[in-house]
Amino acid sequence: MDHVNLLLWSALALSIVSLGFAFMKINWIWKQDRGSDKIKEIGKAISDGAMAFMVREYKIMGIVIAAVFVILLVSKTGSLRLIAGSFILGALFSGLAGLIGMKAATRANMCTATSAQSGLIKALNVAFTGGSVMGLSVVGLALMGLAALTMGYMKFLPDAELYTIMEIISGYSLGASSIALFARVGGGIFTKAADVGADLVGKVEKGIPEDDPRNPATIADNVGDNVGDVAGLGSDLCESYIASIIGAMVLGAEHLHSKNFMVLPLGIAAVGIVTSIIGTFFVRTKEGGNPQRALNYGTIGASLLMLVGCYPLIAWFVPNGFVPPVLAAAATEGPEAFTVLRLFLAIASGLIGGVLIGLVTEHYTADNTKAVIEIADQSQTGAATNIISGIRVGMLATGWPVVILVIVIMSSYQLAGLYGIAIAAVGMLGTTGIQLAVDAYGPIADNAGGLAEMAQLAPVVRERTDKLDAVGNTTAAIGKGFAIGSAALTAIALFVAFKEAADIDTIDITKSHVISGLLFGAMLPYVFSSFLMGAVGRAAFQLIREVQRQFREIKGIFEGTAKPDYVACVDIATKAAIREMIVPSLSAVVLPVLVGYLGGKEMLGGMLVGVTASGVMLALFMANSGGAWDNAKKHIESGKFGGKGSEAHKAAVTGDTVGDPFKDTVGPAMDIIIKLMSVVSLIIAKSIPSVSIFETMFGK
Amino acid sequence: MDHVNLLLWSALALSIVSLGFAFMKINWIWKQDRGSDKIKEIGKAISDGAMAFMVREYKIMGIVIAAVFVILLVSKTGSLRLIAGSFILGALFSGLAGLIGMKAATRANMCTATSAQSGLIKALNVAFTGGSVMGLSVVGLALMGLAALTMGYMKFLPDAELYTIMEIISGYSLGASSIALFARVGGGIFTKAADVGADLVGKVEKGIPEDDPRNPATIADNVGDNVGDVAGLGSDLCESYIASIIGAMVLGAEHLHSKNFMVLPLGIAAVGIVTSIIGTFFVRTKEGGNPQRALNYGTIGASLLMLVGCYPLIAWFVPNGFVPPVLAAAATEGPEAFTVLRLFLAIASGLIGGVLIGLVTEHYTADNTKAVIEIADQSQTGAATNIISGIRVGMLATGWPVVILVIVIMSSYQLAGLYGIAIAAVGMLGTTGIQLAVDAYGPIADNAGGLAEMAQLAPVVRERTDKLDAVGNTTAAIGKGFAIGSAALTAIALFVAFKEAADIDTIDITKSHVISGLLFGAMLPYVFSSFLMGAVGRAAFQLIREVQRQFREIKGIFEGTAKPDYVACVDIATKAAIREMIVPSLSAVVLPVLVGYLGGKEMLGGMLVGVTASGVMLALFMANSGGAWDNAKKHIESGKFGGKGSEAHKAAVTGDTVGDPFKDTVGPAMDIIIKLMSVVSLIIAKSIPSVSIFETMFGK
Repeated sequence: MDHVNLLLWSALALSIVSLGFAFMKINWIWKQDRGSDKIKEIGKAISDGAMAFMVREYKIMGIVIAAVFVILLVSKTGSLRLIAGSFILGALFSGLAGLIGMKAATRANMCTATSAQSGLIKALNVAFTGGSVMGLSVVGLALMGLAALTMGYMKFLPDAELYTIMEIISGYSLGASSIALFARVGGGIFTKAADVGADLVGKVEKGIPEDDPRNPATIADNVGDNVGDVAGLGSDLCESYIASIIGAMVLGAEHLHSKNFMVLPLGIAAVGIVTSIIGTFFVRTKEGGNPQRALNYGTIGASLLMLVGCYPLIAWFVPNGFVPPVLAAAATEGPEAFTVLRLFLAIASGLIGGVLIGLVTEHYTADNTKAVIEIADQSQTGAATNIISGIRVGMLATGWPVVILVIVIMSSYQLAGLYGIAIAAVGMLGTTGIQLAVDAYGPIADNAGGLAEMAQLAPVVRERTDKLDAVGNTTAAIGKGFAIGSAALTAIALFVAFKEAADIDTIDITKSHVISGLLFGAMLPYVFSSFLMGAVGRAAFQLIREVQRQFREIKGIFEGTAKPDYVACVDIATKAAIREMIVPSLSAVVLPVLVGYLGGKEMLGGMLVGVTASGVMLALFMANSGGAWDNAKKHIESGKFGGKGSEAHKAAVTGDTVGDPFKDTVGPAMDIIIKLMSVVSLIIAKSIPSVSIFETMFGK
Repeated sequence: MDHVNLLLWSALALSIVSLGFAFMKINWIWKQDRGSDKIKEIGKAISDGAMAFMVREYKIMGIVIAAVFVILLVSKTGSLRLIAGSFILGALFSGLAGLIGMKAATRANMCTATSAQSGLIKALNVAFTGGSVMGLSVVGLALMGLAALTMGYMKFLPDAELYTIMEIISGYSLGASSIALFARVGGGIFTKAADVGADLVGKVEKGIPEDDPRNPATIADNVGDNVGDVAGLGSDLCESYIASIIGAMVLGAEHLHSKNFMVLPLGIAAVGIVTSIIGTFFVRTKEGGNPQRALNYGTIGASLLMLVGCYPLIAWFVPNGFVPPVLAAAATEGPEAFTVLRLFLAIASGLIGGVLIGLVTEHYTADNTKAVIEIADQSQTGAATNIISGIRVGMLATGWPVVILVIVIMSSYQLAGLYGIAIAAVGMLGTTGIQLAVDAYGPIADNAGGLAEMAQLAPVVRERTDKLDAVGNTTAAIGKGFAIGSAALTAIALFVAFKEAADIDTIDITKSHVISGLLFGAMLPYVFSSFLMGAVGRAAFQLIREVQRQFREIKGIFEGTAKPDYVACVDIATKAAIREMIVPSLSAVVLPVLVGYLGGKEMLGGMLVGVTASGVMLALFMANSGGAWDNAKKHIESGKFGGKGSEAHKAAVTGDTVGDPFKDTVGPAMDIIIKLMSVVSLIIAKSIPSVSIFETMFGK
């Protein structure tokens, strides 16, 4: 067997190993004690609600997926029609990954709450294992599909050019992106609408605590955490993961014309899977140990192992001293060869950059940092100063991540050209498996706390889950920084792949239609954000009216003698979220097509860069402001600046409420929109006529 | 005399006519009654405070200007050293324009308050005349300097290439931009720090009304309106005006290699001056008439006249059927000639686009619009929903202005190439004279109201000035939309001029250093905004402490028996604002130089586009959110949703406080930063080595 086939088979095998581990962990969780009947009852309500939402969401997605499938089938010719198959597979696997993650999480919620009765670290183990189910399923499914498609198409289309094969495989990324966008946007709207709805009537109007079972929207709130923060996040990172690998593969095929460079990204991903699995074993500590440190051991250990593992892979696989044909053709003196060291360092730059971006995010949003304490301090003079200082912190927090990104882009390009940028993105996302496990752990711990509250467990249980949740807030913020950084790098890799696929020499921003496309693109994230915030508001409003209706019409809810109608609330939030997700999701797919055909390839290229630059900044700003507001509120609640119930606390609650849609709806949706638009453009790149409709009408 | 000289002499003559009219209007105002001794006393305190601030501000600017002067003198060789002279002249004229505007405004404040005792329309006349002093001085001084420099250099450097002359003249724009940035940033920090400081202690802590003479910060608040909203705005538009003309002149010289096309923009500006002067006579209505309509007659009348006037100018001046050498060289078939109609339509597209952007801004921010009523409505559920809906509106409001800009850019390019984009910008700014008069009228009316309150005039006076102020809010919002739109188009014209001056073929965004520059540039407006918001907070904090100290230490202030120390407050705000303005202002000048030399011309080009795209969006978002919050508060104060003192009102006040630095400090500063960076780049374009320091170190 040649190197290429050996690598593909290994990637396939390791992806199956990853799924095996995920299955083992599922088994383990299903063996844990779910606790009292009360917990089981509430847990089942949450699980059923989440399932009901996802079924309905998937139905709508199914229609869109079917429509796109038909369009792809009709618009493509010859073997390119196979793209429709890749597309379906991508959609299927991405949807499946979200579903598995959600099922595991809703089960792990209950077990975490129950095990928290016996100890903090026991609960940590259950929650993290729940998260790692999703982490390992996502990377396992994603890589399995990619490796299988690559092998399959290379075998059954032996005469096809490499770039034809890559064009067909790109459909896989489109499928995953489409699902991801719906899941992120739909889940994001659901979770925040339920959160705001539950809080405004429960906490503010009626004065009952959070997660009180008397509040009819409380189950919907917990459902939201599972479908938004777990399933949505899973689809998001799954999509980044796939898109970054495909971006690098396209460049290997189109730009370097080399089968080895085309499949190398799959090998890097396979190394990342192994190190992620090993990393999950590092997340261990004794009772009394520090949960944050345990999680850090896992992620940083996996990253270090990844660095160690990539070098031998490249040394074995890459033709040493390879000179890309493009460089050889352009060079006047001896062109730079792609040595093993250069490729390795390009991957390393991405990996290290990702870790650094996470650390910067922690610096601005973690509890007890200077930025968070300042926001808490400013809350003493009221909501206005709290808001201003939160916005200030979020805007400032765009600085270092962008500088790090720029350094990664410039150095990886120096090391291995455009391909270098793309494998830096693969390197950054290599440890997605464990990263995602850590990210999903947060909402599981959070929900376990909610369950403990609703099931009226002993206060010590809530204290323990709160400790786990506090750690989860920090990991969530780091995860968001990481998601945005990787989305930016992936979008740039896809953009470069788009340029190669579209076969254009330059995208010159001094041309009027390119700069026009860029301005138009830079505006889109703002209008999307505006729409999403409006959607949360509209959905929350409907939920508020329902909760108020129940308090009014169902006698005895407030006294605890009658049970509220939880299902009705879940139902309303579901319908509202699904209705609201359609317009933004579809326009993210349709706009690149419109601009591409009307204004031409270069204008589309300008638009992609505009969307990426503006979207990344907005996402960083919103995620950081939101995280900082959240922890500023927690800081005050821990007794500082007057503590709970003080004027400062009221102001901090305002900031937190503003920050919720920022960090959980709008920010994450930006990540996907920029990638999805790039993927759509990549797929249509070859079919856009070189003279656009606009040019036909008005002349060049 | 040939056409070119005739045009230059006419432009010079008309600019002097404009100054003559400004002088007449000054005379008229100085003849008006300043009213009671009380008004005179308070008015003098405001006028003295504003003067004290400007003197200190100008001292600091003087040092920076002197330093840049020396740098220019040393770094340039031969006749290019003359650039230092242009620079000084630009700085001088821009500073002078701000000073005249401020002096006229502080005098007109008093006369407006006094004349409001006899009638609404009388007061409108005084306030608008005060504003038109600044409008006509700004355009008069700006065009006088430009025409004189062009004539002078063409006469004394008869052998110089056109582009050498343009490089020398560009210094004029740099001088104006530098002053504008300091004035906008310094004034913006001062005005909001004083506003917040006065409100937080006065209204919130002590419960005394706005503009109450017992509040020690009240004079500082009024000083701020004059130095920020009047002098700052004047320098801002002066700079846009100059930069757009110079951008078009550079393209005429470098891109079209034609003296006629180089000086044509001066002719267009001269037409705009005449129509602006005529427009001021349209602003008339009888007692009982509608002030808004009177102001609209002026601006729209001037715009229509401008359209009428430009056609004969072009027909007389432009060689009909002119084919630019670049097009002739590139064309395969008959290249498009620059016909009179094409040039005229390009100018018209900019002019119409500017008016439309103003109308869109009005749609989102004016009182009684759907957007503003929605924010007011959402205030009923608290500050958080008020903030979210304000942000939502501001983000949505980026949409149409950008679409309009894109249409202007694409159509003007189709009509007359890159030069077309540049003269569209000149067309948009052609009526700056009257536009600025209308903009400055707002703060004058506002301050007259403050004076009436402080001098305890009859309530009817305050009612009248409030009516004028309400109109002023709308005109201010329209003016801001217009300022941002014109800044964007100017920045793009300058960017295109930069590319020509730097002599680079393409700025290709698929190159790693260009996209890196772009991302870096897109991040800068966020970090600047963050810094500016922090500056307002820090300055306000110092002022609050001073006000609290005075209430504590000076017995009898609250009872009205002792006079507070107004001067100390002005002094503290002045020092704080000036200290805070230095870092952001200097970095806007230094960053393009650093990036240019380190990363090369193309990376700098990428950065400029990033700054422009991201800065325009942020500026639009912040200006619109701020304006909408302000009017939502006013809407509630007019008695809707519970009226003054209700919970909704409290929430709306929070939004308004957040919006203040958005719309009056950060948003306007963005306008200037994007233009200043472009101007700096244009000036250094030719001196950047074609192999950057980065490339020398790491290879290409």
